[in-house]
Amino acid sequence: MAEHSKPILLIGAGLAGSLLAVLLAKQGFEVIVAERRGDPRAKGYVGGRSINLALSVRGITALSAAGIAEQVLADALPMPGRIMHPETLTDATGQGTVFQPYSQNPADAILSVSRGGLNVALLDAAEQTPGVELHFDHRCTHVDLDNASATFDTPEGEVELQGRVIIGADCAFSAVRHAMQMTDRFDYSQHYLEAGYKELHIPAAADLPDLPAGVAERFHGYAMDPKGLHIWAGRGGGASMMIALPNPDKSFTCTLFWPYAGTHGFDAVEPLSDKALRAFFDEHYPDTRWLMPTLVEDFRANPTSSLVTVRCRPWRRGKSLILGDAAHAIVPFFGQGMNAAFEDCRILAEMIEEAGGDIEAVMDPFWRARVDHANAIADMAIANFVEMREKVADEAFLYHKRVEQAVHAELGDEMPERATPLYNLVSFTNVPYAEALFRGKELDTTIARIAALVPPERADSMDEASWRELVADHARRVLGGQPA
Amino acid sequence: MAEHSKPILLIGAGLAGSLLAVLLAKQGFEVIVAERRGDPRAKGYVGGRSINLALSVRGITALSAAGIAEQVLADALPMPGRIMHPETLTDATGQGTVFQPYSQNPADAILSVSRGGLNVALLDAAEQTPGVELHFDHRCTHVDLDNASATFDTPEGEVELQGRVIIGADCAFSAVRHAMQMTDRFDYSQHYLEAGYKELHIPAAADLPDLPAGVAERFHGYAMDPKGLHIWAGRGGGASMMIALPNPDKSFTCTLFWPYAGTHGFDAVEPLSDKALRAFFDEHYPDTRWLMPTLVEDFRANPTSSLVTVRCRPWRRGKSLILGDAAHAIVPFFGQGMNAAFEDCRILAEMIEEAGGDIEAVMDPFWRARVDHANAIADMAIANFVEMREKVADEAFLYHKRVEQAVHAELGDEMPERATPLYNLVSFTNVPYAEALFRGKELDTTIARIAALVPPERADSMDEASWRELVADHARRVLGGQPA
Repeated sequence: MAEHSKPILLIGAGLAGSLLAVLLAKQGFEVIVAERRGDPRAKGYVGGRSINLALSVRGITALSAAGIAEQVLADALPMPGRIMHPETLTDATGQGTVFQPYSQNPADAILSVSRGGLNVALLDAAEQTPGVELHFDHRCTHVDLDNASATFDTPEGEVELQGRVIIGADCAFSAVRHAMQMTDRFDYSQHYLEAGYKELHIPAAADLPDLPAGVAERFHGYAMDPKGLHIWAGRGGGASMMIALPNPDKSFTCTLFWPYAGTHGFDAVEPLSDKALRAFFDEHYPDTRWLMPTLVEDFRANPTSSLVTVRCRPWRRGKSLILGDAAHAIVPFFGQGMNAAFEDCRILAEMIEEAGGDIEAVMDPFWRARVDHANAIADMAIANFVEMREKVADEAFLYHKRVEQAVHAELGDEMPERATPLYNLVSFTNVPYAEALFRGKELDTTIARIAALVPPERADSMDEASWRELVADHARRVLGGQPA
Repeated sequence: MAEHSKPILLIGAGLAGSLLAVLLAKQGFEVIVAERRGDPRAKGYVGGRSINLALSVRGITALSAAGIAEQVLADALPMPGRIMHPETLTDATGQGTVFQPYSQNPADAILSVSRGGLNVALLDAAEQTPGVELHFDHRCTHVDLDNASATFDTPEGEVELQGRVIIGADCAFSAVRHAMQMTDRFDYSQHYLEAGYKELHIPAAADLPDLPAGVAERFHGYAMDPKGLHIWAGRGGGASMMIALPNPDKSFTCTLFWPYAGTHGFDAVEPLSDKALRAFFDEHYPDTRWLMPTLVEDFRANPTSSLVTVRCRPWRRGKSLILGDAAHAIVPFFGQGMNAAFEDCRILAEMIEEAGGDIEAVMDPFWRARVDHANAIADMAIANFVEMREKVADEAFLYHKRVEQAVHAELGDEMPERATPLYNLVSFTNVPYAEALFRGKELDTTIARIAALVPPERADSMDEASWRELVADHARRVLGGQPA
């Protein structure tokens, strides 16, 4: 174990900060963690209704490195695919929804986890790891990047903490990054989508007296199938959608992703009367009539929030480093914000270990190794908004996906480098994001060629097995024809 | 004249702020101008050695609208082209430099003007315009965007000023924009070039005892031809250059534009000994041996500064608006930073006048009309760095330029929409930047086709007149063949 005279000062005890504290303390570092908010565990948090996140392989890999994957996975709900809700649904029986698997590999699923529950698990793990010292209610007011010291407003007055280095894991509005933004030659951009989001709620089946008979039993107490990420796509001409993720308490957390402008946008819908608001949802999200008894109250009570992408470089100034959302906040449409931040933590910890504990030596190599991947997932997350809200309801796109899944199923084992789709590379592997993007685009071109060679009309005239064989033959020729 | 209950609060009395004050006061508005720095006129500024800027048609158009173009033009030095200094020069006689005209129209020239002198002229004009009230030493510490009020640190203590609206013309590090950056859904980016700049100095010929005989007389007391923008391009493998602009006191202000990294970059050259530094310039900028007796002192004394591009949107929040560098700081390689800011002022004033003085009504239409043009000149300025530092010493590029100039000379009057090159559209017309960029790219494609049809070898075998005729014939066919 390395010996170090001063502790690492880690700012932010959110998801990335608390995970990183565990990973670094396991290497023998003393880690002081300073968090702006109070201890979420002190408030009697029990893991019920909450924002949820999609955990996938990158995140799990990092949690495993910290030795806490098993515990987190115990509460996670696997979502092996998308469950589409057409605008034409006539009830809430679950009939008429369409399941689109994420993968041909039955083991592949993204996991719905509670943000609050995960944070509590990570804080517990940090507290139990020798060398970690947690300070809550510490609002960072000043950072001296070169000296690795920072000042905090606390209930006991102003406190100054000194580190060997500072690591800022303090979210999209990072105080550490803000100090970096004041320095010369710091590239920075914040870009907002034209869309915002608002959370809504679907309670457990037991709290929905009007739910059609049999639904509660079929879905084990949930009002909808919990084994999927529910999407109401293609609304408002393709600009608007709603999603829902299952919670362990058998409720769902729903999120509207709507533009601010336009007839299906927040600016137009928010001023509607309660009655008109309910009618609007009955028309465009018909099954919410049964699923959302508190729709109007929730819609009024919950804020509409914006969606920002933050990029910057460098991530290091003096003795200070940023990572996770502080360095690269992304929009949520690929479910990769937390996973990317966890991957940052894992890779930084690995680089520090390989360097024999010389943190200072790896700070520049770390961000230089990560920044292109952060930019790649930022781009992919924006692109996936378009896919989720529009294309998942488009015939040609669905056929393209069908060919892609067939190619993956038939050739995935034989040539994983070539026949694994972008979504799978991002969600179900640790292949670096920029490489996943490159490979995904290559496969996309191939799939488009195959879909042209075997058009949907042809598929209609064949049985599934013969169609798959034909697609696989074409794919093998196209993919195999290029140098490996 | 419109009547208004409250004055316009204009933050920043630099070039754009003082010009806008004149333009608005002329429409009958009361304008309070608050400037962070002291009054430059109080410091006995006499217009000698100083930073200089390239004034071109957009700037002149705006100065004319304010009625002060004549006065400014009296001190301006026309630069009708580039004067290239090859790395192989053996003396400072002016022999061996190459003149590249900017235009086939002999009236077209960019003008070297003193930033300080221009600011003084604009402040004098503002002070003499009824309705303008100037406040210096007012450092803005807080802006209330929605109420159009702002707080200032002044020698007399804290002062609050209240306007009908706020207009921020307060430079690339704008306090007004900074307040906007704290609001939700404000898109913002700052991007630095890998290169920085440092100013150097060439004194008047009278102060250069070693200058070759006859130079002072030939250039009317200047050490080099004052009728051009001098460029030492293609240094350091094309990544580095130096430029020089003439001053009315017969000196030149020179600027190094070098990358920070690399053997011809600031990081490598700054640590050199005085002797090695002088030898470095003798090797790469050989005529500076005669032209820059204080090279080493200037190089050590003058800071190395960074080059930033700032973009944002919207430019309006509540009752506050930003323009000029505050909204779109650009790099200096197209000489358009000031010209773009002046164009902002002219167009805003025109829109206000057309709206009968209803400033609030034109704030959104103004920035929406300008932001794409600001982005276009930001892109062109970055692209021109590459052209200036590398391509102006490249044979194929020079032949392309020769064809372009011939096409412009032969067809410019006949089809100005099509046959006017990008540089000319930007510098010598008021065609909106984005349109100039579009048209310039179209012409570029045409020129490339013609240069392929009439290659340099063919040009070598023909006399100039026949070559021009042949080029014009091809151009007329290519340009005329597309719908007008």
